[in-house]
Amino acid sequence: MRIDLGALAEPIVQAPMAGGVSTPALAAAVNAAGGLGFLAAGYKTAEAVSDDIRALRALTDRPFGVNIFAPPRPLTAGPRAAAEAGVAAYAGRLAHEAERYRVRLGEPRHDDDDFRAKVALVARERVPVVSATFGCPEPTVMDSLHEAGCDVWITVTSPHEAVVAEQAGADALVVQGLESGGHRGYFSDESAVDDLGLIVALRLIASRVKLPLIAAGGIADGRAVAAVLCAGAVAAQVGSALMLTPEAATSAPHRAALAGSGATRLTRAFSGRTARGIVNRFMTEHDASAPAAYPDVHHLTAPIRSAARAAGDQEAINLWAGQAHALAQAAPAGQIVRRLGAEARAAIAAVALRLGSPGA
Amino acid sequence: MRIDLGALAEPIVQAPMAGGVSTPALAAAVNAAGGLGFLAAGYKTAEAVSDDIRALRALTDRPFGVNIFAPPRPLTAGPRAAAEAGVAAYAGRLAHEAERYRVRLGEPRHDDDDFRAKVALVARERVPVVSATFGCPEPTVMDSLHEAGCDVWITVTSPHEAVVAEQAGADALVVQGLESGGHRGYFSDESAVDDLGLIVALRLIASRVKLPLIAAGGIADGRAVAAVLCAGAVAAQVGSALMLTPEAATSAPHRAALAGSGATRLTRAFSGRTARGIVNRFMTEHDASAPAAYPDVHHLTAPIRSAARAAGDQEAINLWAGQAHALAQAAPAGQIVRRLGAEARAAIAAVALRLGSPGA
Repeated sequence: MRIDLGALAEPIVQAPMAGGVSTPALAAAVNAAGGLGFLAAGYKTAEAVSDDIRALRALTDRPFGVNIFAPPRPLTAGPRAAAEAGVAAYAGRLAHEAERYRVRLGEPRHDDDDFRAKVALVARERVPVVSATFGCPEPTVMDSLHEAGCDVWITVTSPHEAVVAEQAGADALVVQGLESGGHRGYFSDESAVDDLGLIVALRLIASRVKLPLIAAGGIADGRAVAAVLCAGAVAAQVGSALMLTPEAATSAPHRAALAGSGATRLTRAFSGRTARGIVNRFMTEHDASAPAAYPDVHHLTAPIRSAARAAGDQEAINLWAGQAHALAQAAPAGQIVRRLGAEARAAIAAVALRLGSPGA
Repeated sequence: MRIDLGALAEPIVQAPMAGGVSTPALAAAVNAAGGLGFLAAGYKTAEAVSDDIRALRALTDRPFGVNIFAPPRPLTAGPRAAAEAGVAAYAGRLAHEAERYRVRLGEPRHDDDDFRAKVALVARERVPVVSATFGCPEPTVMDSLHEAGCDVWITVTSPHEAVVAEQAGADALVVQGLESGGHRGYFSDESAVDDLGLIVALRLIASRVKLPLIAAGGIADGRAVAAVLCAGAVAAQVGSALMLTPEAATSAPHRAALAGSGATRLTRAFSGRTARGIVNRFMTEHDASAPAAYPDVHHLTAPIRSAARAAGDQEAINLWAGQAHALAQAAPAGQIVRRLGAEARAAIAAVALRLGSPGA
């Protein structure tokens, strides 16, 4: 690994947060405060990502990361027909939502989010850290990124995925506990799994692989940062805790929901893939009916979510948030990164005092 | 609170582990190593608990705890009829299991596990710490325990339960993350909740109440102990990590399952109340059909579980285990408690070095 997370002034990695929240300004502010900023390539065109990289480089000369969605498994004829039938049934169910928000449902597509073009872009741009979510890219992709000098991080949720990613040549792993907001990084979203809490995920994975681990999920203050470092992570990835910053492009209704203490849960209702968000009407009404068909359902529901967002209506937006979102504070990102670091140091000092020295 | 957990030589509390695992020898060994040992009153008669207390006092002169199940809500006629119908249907489904293990199904009862007698016992015995699971005892019970000089700890799984327990006069809270093995301590098991990961549970609860917090769930090595202390706990409660000790009365088939890396999940199949165990045949086949009827279903399935245990058959036992059970080691309990403490100190020292001093 070329990027030494142990050398960052603050042990904080910004979570990518695709779907409009991440901005070059947010990544630059995290970098300036001593953390590692990230751009989210998901849902954007390669051209838009290229613009983001250019904008970020104008704001920082420090290393940064870009997150890319690994492509969904191409579907063969049988599964494709089944998925399409499931999506069609779900579309029927959502007709009244489209009417309510005066939009037409989106066209469901089983696309790969422009994966090849984005890989070519980050390699050409020699982006310092390229992280992948939803699976482990194939060997030729891993090789091309390594040849371009990129560190490749893979998001994992279980010891099994960690072992696969290590064998595939990952340079580090983003270990996602079930506390995290947004999509679960499962390599496959088809089976019912028992999601691991973050501390357990870190300890079980550390017992199986040798790679540096970045901890993600529910880390919203410095005590939690200190906790995951003790549990074996080299850095804490922070998402929700940065969503109320002025640098984030979080929508107004999403900000209002994050600032409350509403419960979160996992659902496929918005995108066809399991993700954690604050419970609202759309989730409650449609969760049980949503098929496992990503990104088809994402495209299907996009106009509804977009119209609700524009109308300031929290009840039909994917309000992605981690379990600790109620602890997020509205403050500049740099201030939050420095506060997390300071709180982590204070927590470690207090516990050191309680426990006494090693060997004592 | 009379027991100062901050003064324990090791920040380790033994989890109670009802159902046959806990023994006076285990609690005494944890005490001798500088932690706080616990007895489990659950499922035992008050007389048997009295014997355990006497046996433990012969082995240790340090403080210890006894855990009691708060009684289930008495059912009024309508809910009782519904619950009985659900249990009867489940019993029909389990007939072939009874046949397979050559037993008769147990008689389902909606009893209170001899709650009053156990409260009277621990008050009479002036047990230093009395913890409650499955809810918050009523005011007269809290008062009688306090008058007897007992510290009362309440098991909580959410900020809401924590606030209720604080208002009821709890002296400390056992904060149970979803990682934990055995029964979830929900005050009510009737609604679908989104269980919190342990770090998040600690941080959200610490933001709402002032009580000392004992962290429980998936803590199986010293790095995890250090993590929960950083996250604000005064001690770590450890269960699975002590189940392979010679002092624990864990059955042979249960030990074999714990030593493997089998996945765990939550289920009501064995007891009618949500609990985490290692996935096996009985859980897989009956989980979806099990009613929320505790302890009725516990009594119903007891003969099957007992026969399977005697036969060394893992597939029909409630293999309670936390998510980190694969990290449990077979070693004397005292050795494990000291190792957890030493590893925690080493983890804190390493992170302190990485982060530098507070204010630096």
